Amino acid sequence: MKITQSFIPTLREDPGDAVIASHRLMFRAGMLRKLANGLFAYLPLGLRSFRKVERIIREEMDAIGSLEIKPTVVVPGELWKESGRWESMGESLLRVKNRLGNDFVVSPTAEEAFSALVRDELSSYRQLPLSLYQINTKYRDEIRPRYGVMRGREFVMKDAYSFHTNDASLDAHYEAMGRAYRRIFKRCGLTVIPVRADSGAMGGSGSEEFMVESEIGDNTLILCESCDYAANVEKASCKADYSAPGEAVSGEAAPAPAIEKIDTPAVRTIEELCAFLKTDAKQFIKTLIYRAANVELDLSGAPGCSKLERRRPAPDAPEVYGEAFFAVAIRGDLDVNEVKLAAALKAAEVALAQDSDVERLTGAPVGFAGPVGLGSVPVIADETVTALHDAVTGALAKDLHYRHVACGRDFTPWLVADLRTVKAGDLCPVCGGALYEKRGNELGHIFKLGYKYTKSMGLSYLDENGKSQIPTMGCYGIGVDRALASVIEEHHDGSGIVWPMTVAPYHVIIVPIKYEGAVKDASDALAGELESLGVEALLDDRDERPGVKFNDADLTGIPLRVVVGGRELAGDRPRVEIKGRAEEKGRLVELSLAAKTLSLQVLAEIALLNS
Amino acid sequence: MKITQSFIPTLREDPGDAVIASHRLMFRAGMLRKLANGLFAYLPLGLRSFRKVERIIREEMDAIGSLEIKPTVVVPGELWKESGRWESMGESLLRVKNRLGNDFVVSPTAEEAFSALVRDELSSYRQLPLSLYQINTKYRDEIRPRYGVMRGREFVMKDAYSFHTNDASLDAHYEAMGRAYRRIFKRCGLTVIPVRADSGAMGGSGSEEFMVESEIGDNTLILCESCDYAANVEKASCKADYSAPGEAVSGEAAPAPAIEKIDTPAVRTIEELCAFLKTDAKQFIKTLIYRAANVELDLSGAPGCSKLERRRPAPDAPEVYGEAFFAVAIRGDLDVNEVKLAAALKAAEVALAQDSDVERLTGAPVGFAGPVGLGSVPVIADETVTALHDAVTGALAKDLHYRHVACGRDFTPWLVADLRTVKAGDLCPVCGGALYEKRGNELGHIFKLGYKYTKSMGLSYLDENGKSQIPTMGCYGIGVDRALASVIEEHHDGSGIVWPMTVAPYHVIIVPIKYEGAVKDASDALAGELESLGVEALLDDRDERPGVKFNDADLTGIPLRVVVGGRELAGDRPRVEIKGRAEEKGRLVELSLAAKTLSLQVLAEIALLNS
Repeated sequence: MKITQSFIPTLREDPGDAVIASHRLMFRAGMLRKLANGLFAYLPLGLRSFRKVERIIREEMDAIGSLEIKPTVVVPGELWKESGRWESMGESLLRVKNRLGNDFVVSPTAEEAFSALVRDELSSYRQLPLSLYQINTKYRDEIRPRYGVMRGREFVMKDAYSFHTNDASLDAHYEAMGRAYRRIFKRCGLTVIPVRADSGAMGGSGSEEFMVESEIGDNTLILCESCDYAANVEKASCKADYSAPGEAVSGEAAPAPAIEKIDTPAVRTIEELCAFLKTDAKQFIKTLIYRAANVELDLSGAPGCSKLERRRPAPDAPEVYGEAFFAVAIRGDLDVNEVKLAAALKAAEVALAQDSDVERLTGAPVGFAGPVGLGSVPVIADETVTALHDAVTGALAKDLHYRHVACGRDFTPWLVADLRTVKAGDLCPVCGGALYEKRGNELGHIFKLGYKYTKSMGLSYLDENGKSQIPTMGCYGIGVDRALASVIEEHHDGSGIVWPMTVAPYHVIIVPIKYEGAVKDASDALAGELESLGVEALLDDRDERPGVKFNDADLTGIPLRVVVGGRELAGDRPRVEIKGRAEEKGRLVELSLAAKTLSLQVLAEIALLNS
Repeated sequence: MKITQSFIPTLREDPGDAVIASHRLMFRAGMLRKLANGLFAYLPLGLRSFRKVERIIREEMDAIGSLEIKPTVVVPGELWKESGRWESMGESLLRVKNRLGNDFVVSPTAEEAFSALVRDELSSYRQLPLSLYQINTKYRDEIRPRYGVMRGREFVMKDAYSFHTNDASLDAHYEAMGRAYRRIFKRCGLTVIPVRADSGAMGGSGSEEFMVESEIGDNTLILCESCDYAANVEKASCKADYSAPGEAVSGEAAPAPAIEKIDTPAVRTIEELCAFLKTDAKQFIKTLIYRAANVELDLSGAPGCSKLERRRPAPDAPEVYGEAFFAVAIRGDLDVNEVKLAAALKAAEVALAQDSDVERLTGAPVGFAGPVGLGSVPVIADETVTALHDAVTGALAKDLHYRHVACGRDFTPWLVADLRTVKAGDLCPVCGGALYEKRGNELGHIFKLGYKYTKSMGLSYLDENGKSQIPTMGCYGIGVDRALASVIEEHHDGSGIVWPMTVAPYHVIIVPIKYEGAVKDASDALAGELESLGVEALLDDRDERPGVKFNDADLTGIPLRVVVGGRELAGDRPRVEIKGRAEEKGRLVELSLAAKTLSLQVLAEIALLNS
């Protein structure tokens, strides 16, 4: 392809609103243009790379037996009402009413459409397992779309959904998907961090996120310096930083003195208490009152819960307590991870209680809550609290604290769980190494959805015994635009993009010093030879100075550059200069061998990434 | 691919709402399912053929230098307001307001998006010509979607837009597109009828529609039995069926007697007049009063128009008369083609005037209008009227007609134009052969849009002299779904689809009589051999009776069927039966030669279609 016959409008300047490298470089390299906030058009160069990412994903999905289908982008609102997400998805769901007054959704995800399709076709266990995918347009009405296609409103996703008769079958496909995802990212040249993640609004349990490191990432990742432990902070755990339950943190083995009430006038924060008592925050039991909504955990017999009543929000839903309060006790230097807390309580939502509730339930102003003698709510203790046998805590009265408090002696938690927010410096739960934090962006996500959608949408099949059963379900997504942008985030330098060969828009760029005479002839011939060898070559036939062409070659990041012209081309054995985009210097190759040399290098680099 | 590992839910019964073959067969062959009215999901088998049609289109677009891009499906309403189509498109345009109150459109077509993109990048004549295309999702909010994907709400279109500095450049690309379209349809195995068509709401002049014959077609086509003349009835013309202007239809060469007023009591229709005067409808001048809106034609000096005023509906729009009335005179046996009339008047809209207007303008009840002595409106005559020199016509008074009326002697039309609706039996304007009618569906359409969008959206470039110029534009669409459905309409029989090799979901179907033992081994080996030869084979490994498998093979229409098993497979020289889908009988081929034989046939059939 000659540049003058393509449409590659490169820019010298960064677009004003571009913060991250991929956004900047996709615009500057002429890959992308903006139609409106969060809506982008891929230009020819960008689309070539985009299609290559798509193709890699398609090949790997096909390889594990997932079958491509193509539902619509606009889907009936009815399906979303059946699943309950018409209500629960909030305003990011683009809802449309057509001229007849029917409701539609511009799909942000496709659990409903796939479930409905399979529902209508499924009759026998013999049809399962069944794994289907699409690579299709999605829309999410982001309030503040940012970072180019990294967080746009319209985007393309591969989403797959699988249906199974049993957990073992789902597990096997989930694992196969995990392996396919690892291959997809490797083939794209992407370094991903697979992390166990909270499955959030998608429902179900058992999920893995594939993250890339990114300064503007949506997620905080907890990683281990020594092993490959990786988790989203929302779910990360760590090694307990005490020797064993029953021993005090300070290392004292002696039994603590008896509990004692102390005056702490005008002292309310942990910091103030530390200063006042001249001790460490690790000696404190911080107690926070939480309000939880729609709690599934059985609270019969829990302190203060005798009057709570359970109800069923929907005919098929499990019974829940609409509202319940809890005291969460945690070591003074730690923070409560609310995702973990909600999971421990099986609650739809948890949030710190309002001051008025705190005062009502503790009988004291905010700042003096403590687990000792607290009968109005169940005490939920983080694991760290069970190791505290000489601690300080609030005494449920203004300006009063207890000291020498021992968990198990002076109070007994109703429930003990891992509730802490893990942070840099904590110890790896697997190997004990030091943990550190990174910001990350999610590229892919695989979930075991279980029965959430198959139940609400009424899927069933007859098993071997002719009995009606509900299938279990998995779901597996990859954002194509985001994957492409992430390749650029990982592969660029000060001059532009540095494409991995597999997803480069072209393999080779031919740069004639001046496109005329013998240089033109040699360039055209080389382009023809490369084409016949299946090498994708871009020929810079513009009437521009060599410096401009070199800059654009660097900017667009084509992996191999061939310079044709100058002294080297003259003489008996004409030569051209071949340079890898990431290399400092090129090497001279005889013109007659250039196409073959380039072709071998292209094949070798692709093979390496695909291996 | 083994059938048990794919998802091809064939049906024995036609879906209840399927009227046409493609709709019936896409459902029955397990290619397609319905998500809602007018919204369909392609299943794996259907998607394979769909992608092949897409690929053929893409190859032919690339071959003529059109460049693929990918704008969004959801586009800003602002762009549609700039072009004016936010208002003019009516309710088939799916308009969406997002959570921030911004207007969006789920694109039914992409003139606006492409024009906006090019507007932002265009600066110099050196960038032109530029031809861009997309293959992308479209939405049109059909009130009554019908006939499966032939007229769905969501569909995929290839749409291309080209931008040029001059008409010659646009003409050349338009011609190249026309050739590419012919190749695309031929490669898909489609017989198309290219017709000159009215460009309707798309604006501009110079357009060609590519039609396929269809009993449920939206269009009436006028075709010639003798030559390749083809036109949409809206624009069709025909050879004048009189010897020459100035001669009477009846063949009488003698000058007509003087005009004469006759009593025609209680006679108003042409039929009644024919009976009353014992003549033929061809001797009558039918005169109809039309109301036209937004007339661009200059009416200064036209009868009855002196008080009309022109206005400019928008700053850049041409001046028009908001409303004007006309008397349209046409031979009594013919009908007025309102598309031709609107074009002749350069009017946005024409319609028969209301009775009260007719009475006001003719001074007589409806049924007695005539061109003689009519001064209140301009007389627009069809060409046939100029040949009438002894005609009957209304005399502008109740129960009165004129006879012996001669055009040019007794009245002079203000404008003469071709206004007749051509019908079967009329004579071909090219060769004089007999014309006939067919119903047709539009598969593709190429237009010269001219300056309509480039003006309204403000595109410009600097020419060789540094002067700002507006580019001219072409637009070129093909419906992918409709093309695929049309292939089935053209290629099916009573048992199912009969795919052309190029767009068949698989090339070969292997049908083992019973998938076990030596039959299984031979079938698996053959499938492996075919795969290694690049032949796409489907293996029916189901535990079903041979009859069921044969029926499904016919239904899904895979071009070549190989039956493995039975007596033929036993013995020293095992053989299999190969049968083309359209063939009555198969032929026996040695198993060892089967893969090679099939491969050659596949290649030959593809080469023939692509040639």
